[in-house]
Amino acid sequence: MAVRVGVVGVGMIGKEHLRRLQRLSGLCEVTAVSDADISAAQAMAVERPGVAVYPSGLDLIGARDVDAVLVTSKGSTHAEYVLAAIAARKPVFCEKPLATTQQDCQRIVDAEVACGRRLVQVGFMRRYDAAYQSLRKLVADGTIGRPLIFYSAHRNPSVPASYTSDMAIHDTAVHDIDVARWLLGDEVVGITVATPRRNSRGGTLRDPILIQMEMSEGAVANIEVSVNAAYGYDIRGEIVGETGVATLAESNPVVVKHNGNFCGHVPGDWRERFNPAFDREIEDWVRSVAGDSATGPSSWDGYAATVATGAALEAVTIRRRVSVTMAGRPNLYT
Amino acid sequence: MAVRVGVVGVGMIGKEHLRRLQRLSGLCEVTAVSDADISAAQAMAVERPGVAVYPSGLDLIGARDVDAVLVTSKGSTHAEYVLAAIAARKPVFCEKPLATTQQDCQRIVDAEVACGRRLVQVGFMRRYDAAYQSLRKLVADGTIGRPLIFYSAHRNPSVPASYTSDMAIHDTAVHDIDVARWLLGDEVVGITVATPRRNSRGGTLRDPILIQMEMSEGAVANIEVSVNAAYGYDIRGEIVGETGVATLAESNPVVVKHNGNFCGHVPGDWRERFNPAFDREIEDWVRSVAGDSATGPSSWDGYAATVATGAALEAVTIRRRVSVTMAGRPNLYT
Amino acid sequence: MAVRVGVVGVGMIGKEHLRRLQRLSGLCEVTAVSDADISAAQAMAVERPGVAVYPSGLDLIGARDVDAVLVTSKGSTHAEYVLAAIAARKPVFCEKPLATTQQDCQRIVDAEVACGRRLVQVGFMRRYDAAYQSLRKLVADGTIGRPLIFYSAHRNPSVPASYTSDMAIHDTAVHDIDVARWLLGDEVVGITVATPRRNSRGGTLRDPILIQMEMSEGAVANIEVSVNAAYGYDIRGEIVGETGVATLAESNPVVVKHNGNFCGHVPGDWRERFNPAFDREIEDWVRSVAGDSATGPSSWDGYAATVATGAALEAVTIRRRVSVTMAGRPNLYT
Amino acid sequence: MAVRVGVVGVGMIGKEHLRRLQRLSGLCEVTAVSDADISAAQAMAVERPGVAVYPSGLDLIGARDVDAVLVTSKGSTHAEYVLAAIAARKPVFCEKPLATTQQDCQRIVDAEVACGRRLVQVGFMRRYDAAYQSLRKLVADGTIGRPLIFYSAHRNPSVPASYTSDMAIHDTAVHDIDVARWLLGDEVVGITVATPRRNSRGGTLRDPILIQMEMSEGAVANIEVSVNAAYGYDIRGEIVGETGVATLAESNPVVVKHNGNFCGHVPGDWRERFNPAFDREIEDWVRSVAGDSATGPSSWDGYAATVATGAALEAVTIRRRVSVTMAGRPNLYT
Repeated sequence: MAVRVGVVGVGMIGKEHLRRLQRLSGLCEVTAVSDADISAAQAMAVERPGVAVYPSGLDLIGARDVDAVLVTSKGSTHAEYVLAAIAARKPVFCEKPLATTQQDCQRIVDAEVACGRRLVQVGFMRRYDAAYQSLRKLVADGTIGRPLIFYSAHRNPSVPASYTSDMAIHDTAVHDIDVARWLLGDEVVGITVATPRRNSRGGTLRDPILIQMEMSEGAVANIEVSVNAAYGYDIRGEIVGETGVATLAESNPVVVKHNGNFCGHVPGDWRERFNPAFDREIEDWVRSVAGDSATGPSSWDGYAATVATGAALEAVTIRRRVSVTMAGRPNLYT
Repeated sequence: MAVRVGVVGVGMIGKEHLRRLQRLSGLCEVTAVSDADISAAQAMAVERPGVAVYPSGLDLIGARDVDAVLVTSKGSTHAEYVLAAIAARKPVFCEKPLATTQQDCQRIVDAEVACGRRLVQVGFMRRYDAAYQSLRKLVADGTIGRPLIFYSAHRNPSVPASYTSDMAIHDTAVHDIDVARWLLGDEVVGITVATPRRNSRGGTLRDPILIQMEMSEGAVANIEVSVNAAYGYDIRGEIVGETGVATLAESNPVVVKHNGNFCGHVPGDWRERFNPAFDREIEDWVRSVAGDSATGPSSWDGYAATVATGAALEAVTIRRRVSVTMAGRPNLYT
Repeated sequence: MAVRVGVVGVGMIGKEHLRRLQRLSGLCEVTAVSDADISAAQAMAVERPGVAVYPSGLDLIGARDVDAVLVTSKGSTHAEYVLAAIAARKPVFCEKPLATTQQDCQRIVDAEVACGRRLVQVGFMRRYDAAYQSLRKLVADGTIGRPLIFYSAHRNPSVPASYTSDMAIHDTAVHDIDVARWLLGDEVVGITVATPRRNSRGGTLRDPILIQMEMSEGAVANIEVSVNAAYGYDIRGEIVGETGVATLAESNPVVVKHNGNFCGHVPGDWRERFNPAFDREIEDWVRSVAGDSATGPSSWDGYAATVATGAALEAVTIRRRVSVTMAGRPNLYT
Repeated sequence: MAVRVGVVGVGMIGKEHLRRLQRLSGLCEVTAVSDADISAAQAMAVERPGVAVYPSGLDLIGARDVDAVLVTSKGSTHAEYVLAAIAARKPVFCEKPLATTQQDCQRIVDAEVACGRRLVQVGFMRRYDAAYQSLRKLVADGTIGRPLIFYSAHRNPSVPASYTSDMAIHDTAVHDIDVARWLLGDEVVGITVATPRRNSRGGTLRDPILIQMEMSEGAVANIEVSVNAAYGYDIRGEIVGETGVATLAESNPVVVKHNGNFCGHVPGDWRERFNPAFDREIEDWVRSVAGDSATGPSSWDGYAATVATGAALEAVTIRRRVSVTMAGRPNLYT
C-alpha cells in the first residue's frame, strides 16, 4: 500500500519535496496539501488530480486520507503541527528547526516518548549525503583514531535581504551543529562564538562567525559560517583524529586547464550540493513510514540542535562561553 | 498512463534494470519477462505479482500488455529482438551491442528508417554520466577550443575466466568508442591497435590494448583497455583542445590522511562508478517512451560502434591500420 | 668579499645551517664556531680547515675574523648573543625565539633602534616558503578580497620525551603566529586557547591545542597545534577573504593508484617540508649582509611573536581571553 | 680544488648555466667562454673578471685553464666539440642533442669507449626532477608492478616562428623519449607517429603529434607533443603497471577559490617547471667532475635518443611503423 502523504506548506522547499514524493509514486502518493496562503495550496492541487486542499495544517493532519505528514511551513509553526501529528499517531517529517524554542522541542520529545514510539523525523539532510556518510564511516572504522577536532565551514555565496544575523546561527549553523553531534557521536556541553571583522559585502550582518562547541567527551567542533562568501556554496568538513585526518573532498566532475590554471567547479547553491541527499532523505522517510520504523534524525536531534543554537545566540550576546545543559536523553532515542 | 514494459533476459543486468524500472513505478510497470532459462523468468515473476512470464522474447514482444521492450539477453540475440520490436512498432531499449555484426546493425537501422521514426535506444550509459556530460558541455562551450585528441582509459580490476581477448574490444572498448564519437561529435575513419606486453595477471589474455581511432575531422582518440588493472575500476578521460584541456576528475567523497599518505578511493567496479548513470539512462528511456520521443543513443550509434569494434578486431589480426567505412547516416539520426 | 660568518651553537640546527653556509661558498665562509659543549665545536672544526673554535659565543662575536653571526644555541641564551652582536655592530641571524621573555625582546629592539639600522634577522623560515609566499601574494593582489579568517594547522607526527606542553606554544605555534601576522599584515590584540581532549598518544601532554588570535583590524587566526598527529608532518593554511579563499595545496610529486586508493605523500618531518625554505632563508640573510641591507623577519617580529606566545601561555592558565598589548612599533620596522 | 669550467656557447641556455655555475662558486669557477658570435662572448666576459674569451670552442677546449667543458652551442656543432673534449680527456656536459645524426653519436660513443671511461654527460634534465625521480622509484620499488604503458604529454604554450615541425621530434619529444627509456629501463625497438588535425594556432606546423614507442620488453610509450597548447607548459607522465598506476601530480602551491571555481596554477614555461632540475643537473655534473666520476645521462643515452628521434622523423614521412635498430650497448654504459 502506498503511503498517503499530506504536505503542510507548499513554499519553495515544500514544492521540491512534493516533486520528490511524486518520483516515489509507487511508494507513496500525495493526497493532501495546505498552506497559510490557501491560494498557493489550491494552485498546487490544480496541477495534481487527486490532491485535496485543506484549509489548515491541523485539518490536513486530521484527515482520514492522510497517513503521514510532511511539514515545510514556517519554522514558528512547526511545533504545533508536529504535536498534532503525534497526537494523531501519524508519522511526521519536519523541516528544521523542529521548533524554535527549547520548551517546544521538549514538549515534542515528551509527547513522542509518551507515545512509546518514534514518529518524528527532522530534516537534517546532511546525514544522507554520501560524503558525510563516508566521513562518519571512517570514524566508526577507527581509521583515523578517536576524534579530537571537527572543522566545519558553511559558506553561502550570498543571502537575501531578509536574512538576519541570528539566522546564521539558527538557520545555517544548525546543520553544522547537527552534523557535528552525529559525526562525533556526542553531545554539546559548551559554546563560544567569535565574530571576526564583518564581510563588507553583507552590510551590517554579523558575518562571518566562528562557533566553538565543546563536546561532552572533550572533542571540539570549530564551525565557521560565512554567508557572503561570494565564490560559491562551499561546505567543508574535516575530522582530526588521534592518528589521522579525514576531509570532505571537492565534489567536482571535470578539471579544466585553461589560461594558466587548472580549475574545478564549486557548487553554486545548496540545491546543487545537496540535491541527492534531499532525495535520499525523503525516500528514506517514506520507506521507514511504509515499514513502520523510524531511522532518520529524531526529535531528540531536533531538541539538541535547538538547545545548542539557543546557547550560541546567548554566547554572541554575552560575549563569552555558555554552558549547555540538556535534559537526559530518553531511552527512545538511544 | 504508465508504460507497460516487458523485459527480455533476466540475468545480472536484467535484474538491475528491473529494479530500476520498479523505482519508476509511477511512470512504468513491468508486465512481462522472458529468459532463455524459463525457470529464471518464473522465479522473477513469483516475487512480482502481475508480471507474466512468456516462453520467448518474441512472444513477449508480441504481447498486448507490453508497450515497450527492454532487451538484456545475450548479445547474439539482440538483433532478432530489436527487429521484432521495430516490426511491432514498440520502443525498445537494447543493451550494447545493438547487434554483433555490421550486417545486423544495418538491418536494424534500415528497419527503423523504414518505420519513419526512432524506436531504438542502445545502452551506452556513459552518455548519462554527469562527469562525461560536463566534459561534453565544455567542448560545446568552446572553453578548450576545438578538440584534437581524446584520451580514454578503461580499467577493470579483473575479469572472469570466461572473458576472451576479443571481448576487450567488443564488450569493453565499445563504451570508449561510443563516448569518443559522442564527445567529439564525429565518426571513426580509421583504427590501429597496439598490444603492449601482456599483464601477467591475465594469463594468456591480450591485455592491455591501445586503440587509436582517427575521426573524420582529424581528431584522434587514444583508448586504453586494461582488464586486469587490479587496483580498481578506473575510467579516465581527457580531451585536448586547441586552447585547453578537460579531464574527468577523481570522483571521491573523502580524503584520508593516514600513515604518511593522503588517499582517496577508486571505485571498485562499474556499478559503483556508473550506477547513477544507469538510473538516469533507464529513467530517460521510460520518459521518452511515455512522451513518444527518443533522445538517447540510437541505432545509428549502435551501428557505428559495431563497425568500429569490427575494424578494431581486424586491426589486431592484421597488425596494421584498418580503414573504417560506414554507410551514409540516414536523416533520421541527425 | 665573502662574508665571514661565525656560528654560535653547533647542535642539530647549527649543523644544518653550517652545511647551507658551505654551499654558499662564494658568498660567505664560516670562520668561527663555538658551542656550550666545546668538544662539539672542536669536532666540527676538525673537519673544516680554517674554522677557528672560540671558547664562548661572546668571544666569537668579538673576534676580528667574524663579520656576521649566526645564533643557533639554546633559546635561553639568544638574547645575550644578539645583544652582543648589536653592540659589536655585527649582523646576526638568530633562530627563533629571538628571546624567551618580552623584556629581553624589548631590550634587543631598543638596542637595534639605538643603533639606527637593522642588524637582526629572526629564523621564521616559513616566510621563505614558496607556497606561503604565493598565499601572501594572493592576498596582496586582492584576488580573494580583504582577509577575514586565517586557518593554520601545525601537525607533527610525534615529539621527543623532552617536549613539554608549553613548547607547543612557544616553540611550535610561534611559527603559525608569525606567519599569521605576516600574511594578514596585522598585529595580535587578543588570544584565547581551547584545549580539546588530549591525544592519548601524547601521554599527559596538553595536545592538541586551538589558539584563536584576534588581529587589530578584526581578522581572526585559528591555529591548531597537534604534536602527536602520527600520520605525518602536515602544515595547513587557509585564508578566507571577502570574495574568495586561498589554501596551501598538498605538495606531493606523484599520485599512486593501488589497492583501491589513489594516494599522495605527506611530508615526514619539517626538514622534508621546509628544507628549500631554510636554504632560501640562509642565502637571503647572507646576501643581505653582503649588501648591507636587512630584509627578513626582524627583531620586531621576534618581539611580537614572544609577546603573543606569552599571552597564549597565560590564556591557557587562566582559561580565558588575554588582551595583548605591545609597545609602539619603532619606525625602523615599518 | 675548484673545477675550472669553459662554456662553449653563451646564448639563452648558456647564460642560465653560467648563472648556475656561479652559484657553485666553491666547487667550480668559470674560466673561459666562447661563442660563434664573439661579441656575445666578450660581453659576457666583461661582466666577469677572470673569464677569458676564446676565439672558438676548439680553442677553449684546448686551453690549459679549462678542466671541463659545458657545451650549449647550436645542436649541429655539438659533435665536434664533444669529440674534441674527449680527445683532450676533459669531462664535457653537452646540451641535447648529443649530436644530430646517429653516425656522429656513434662516433662519440666509440671515442669515449676507446678512452675507457665516461667523460660525457647529456642534458636530459628531467632525470633530475624530483617528481620523475619519485615516479622511477615507485617502479623500482615494485609498488605498481611491472610497467606496461607509459603516457607522456609534453605541452608548450607556444613556440617561436623559427620552430619547425621536425623540431617537435628532435628538440621537444627527445626529452620524453629519454625519460621513457630511463623510467622503463628499456630500449626502443619500434616507433609509429600519428598526426591529428593541426592546431590552428600553429599555422602550418604539424602539431600535435602522437608518438608510440615499443620497448624491447614489450612496454609501450605513448607520447604526445603539443607545442601550441596555449594554456601553459604542462608536462604529464603516467606509468601503468600490472597492479597499479603512478602519475605525476600537479605541482602547484596554492588553491584559490574564486568566482565559482577552485583553481591551481599550471607552469608558464619550462624554466618555471624545471629550474630546480636544471640546478641539480649542473651541480651533479660539477660534483661528478670534481669526484672523477660520471653518473648522469651518458653518451649512450644521447645516442639512443638520436636514433629514436631519427626513426620518429622517418615514421612521419613514410606514415607507418619504423623498426629501431641500435648498436650493442658497450659495457661502459651498463
